[in-house]
Amino acid sequence: MARRPKSGEFDLIARYFAPLSAGQPGALGLRDDAALLPPSPGAVHVLTTDTLISGVHFLPDDPPALVARKLLRVNISDLAAMAAQPVAYLLALSLPREYDESWVEGFAAGLAQDQEKFGIGLLGGDTTATPGPLSATITAIGEVPTGAELRRSGARPGDMIFVSGTIGDAALGLMVLAGDLLELAEAAAEDLIGRYCLPRPRVSLGYALRGRANAAADVSDGLVADLGHICAASGVGARIDYGRLPLSPAVRAVIAAAPETASTVLSGGDDYELLFTCAPAAAADISAAAVRAEVPVTEIGSVVDGNGVTVIGEDGHEINMKSTGYRHF
Amino acid sequence: MARRPKSGEFDLIARYFAPLSAGQPGALGLRDDAALLPPSPGAVHVLTTDTLISGVHFLPDDPPALVARKLLRVNISDLAAMAAQPVAYLLALSLPREYDESWVEGFAAGLAQDQEKFGIGLLGGDTTATPGPLSATITAIGEVPTGAELRRSGARPGDMIFVSGTIGDAALGLMVLAGDLLELAEAAAEDLIGRYCLPRPRVSLGYALRGRANAAADVSDGLVADLGHICAASGVGARIDYGRLPLSPAVRAVIAAAPETASTVLSGGDDYELLFTCAPAAAADISAAAVRAEVPVTEIGSVVDGNGVTVIGEDGHEINMKSTGYRHF
Repeated sequence: MARRPKSGEFDLIARYFAPLSAGQPGALGLRDDAALLPPSPGAVHVLTTDTLISGVHFLPDDPPALVARKLLRVNISDLAAMAAQPVAYLLALSLPREYDESWVEGFAAGLAQDQEKFGIGLLGGDTTATPGPLSATITAIGEVPTGAELRRSGARPGDMIFVSGTIGDAALGLMVLAGDLLELAEAAAEDLIGRYCLPRPRVSLGYALRGRANAAADVSDGLVADLGHICAASGVGARIDYGRLPLSPAVRAVIAAAPETASTVLSGGDDYELLFTCAPAAAADISAAAVRAEVPVTEIGSVVDGNGVTVIGEDGHEINMKSTGYRHF
Repeated sequence: MARRPKSGEFDLIARYFAPLSAGQPGALGLRDDAALLPPSPGAVHVLTTDTLISGVHFLPDDPPALVARKLLRVNISDLAAMAAQPVAYLLALSLPREYDESWVEGFAAGLAQDQEKFGIGLLGGDTTATPGPLSATITAIGEVPTGAELRRSGARPGDMIFVSGTIGDAALGLMVLAGDLLELAEAAAEDLIGRYCLPRPRVSLGYALRGRANAAADVSDGLVADLGHICAASGVGARIDYGRLPLSPAVRAVIAAAPETASTVLSGGDDYELLFTCAPAAAADISAAAVRAEVPVTEIGSVVDGNGVTVIGEDGHEINMKSTGYRHF
């Protein structure tokens, strides 16, 4: 090697990552070949993995703590969509050869902050050098009582369809970051950017839906795309009303000023709200549970026989959905 | 997007990866937000993660099936070092925007081949587009009866030190690939390259060591480096004899022709053999169990009070170890 290493893999792990594993006895101080995770009695493990890449999913100048928190939260949102409790995670970090150690320090600080918030701990990982952009993959593990998980495949005709929070904020936040929507008031712009940069996984709502909802997913690919996934997995169709979609004041302001952005609410991803269906008999119970979880939920339509997602516009006519989700390739 | 996508993420998953999850009911066909993994009664889950990057850990022209098998096996070797049984894995694959779909097809075929061999199934994953080189991260999950796992921290002064198979082959195989060692006979060169490209995780030996060995690790960073990890985790030292190290005929031939390569046996990584310690009273039992597992094991030294690894040369003098392991940065 021509260049003297700034810091070895082992130094990085000892300095920044081992402290993140302090609350996880099974992490074995990140010094063993693998980690141990005993499940709670009567529970199953729930596992998911997601990657963020510099220049694709975040910008090289984005604060590293925010990147770390987004990566952890995107994974936790998948656990929430299964009604699972976050438990632990593994981190695979690929660093450019000329990385800045302060970036790693900030990244670890962001993880520490959200570990505390979500009750999750670092269990293991791998650090590699890459000639490409910085890339980080988290595999998150949760647990759920056996049989209490929420799947995409349980929706039945007649079910009501709900979504938590508000939708479209993250996709419009990305447009703000890209330099579009310049006329937007600063406070509204910041709200939207915040939703894009820092998802709020609906963990407590996930718990509340155990035994009550029939199917669930998080809104990561876009409302219509993710509802389409529920429909495909369940062998049903869905019909939703555009006029009932929960929109934030910022999103309403953008659409009022630029009506062509209205479809972004249907196709934009990254909201990380929970989308779920339930029998009408369960709706009152779910609404009460959502209030206790302090997460607003809104009924937006119903599950029907057939397949695919139909969106009814405010004029009563079907909206033609050409683009129903983000495609990576 | 300027370029029409060749194939969407969902198409890739359906075509190449969903079939790999067929034997894993908890994978939910790779169509849900996360996967389910119920542990066996009385067992704990064992988790590890490793990344391979094109141009760093393999060459762009390497057969994709071989890359897939190496990635899976590197992870399985970590499970073997904990005496765990491989169960399932998650795959995070970052593909260049102009990737060749036949590469993905070959990669999936390699995974299918080794899934069958090691009794492990695909549980979930993430596919992303990257402006950098192709990169793949596997998180592997195994299980082991509670308390039966092998840790690095259990070595005690007086323990005997064993290593499985032969060492140094993989590091010399990498030198052959780099165009060094040109004088080597073709069969020997191919043996060494094979060891570098396709590790043989010692899963059955790991089982055999349950309740018998005091500490274990796999040889991934290099014999002295990994023994040093065991020493550090256990608060002990180690003394090994160079003359007792198990060397293959190919490695012996290289060292005879180029004596300066002799230290590679101590410092070279990627052998993925098991390195373990045991009380002398357990040695006969372990040797018999290793025969049943059809894996040769060789005693190479002993655990001592103190710290660090001392290597005694064939002349009876201590070998000065300047380089004791591969550093990523």
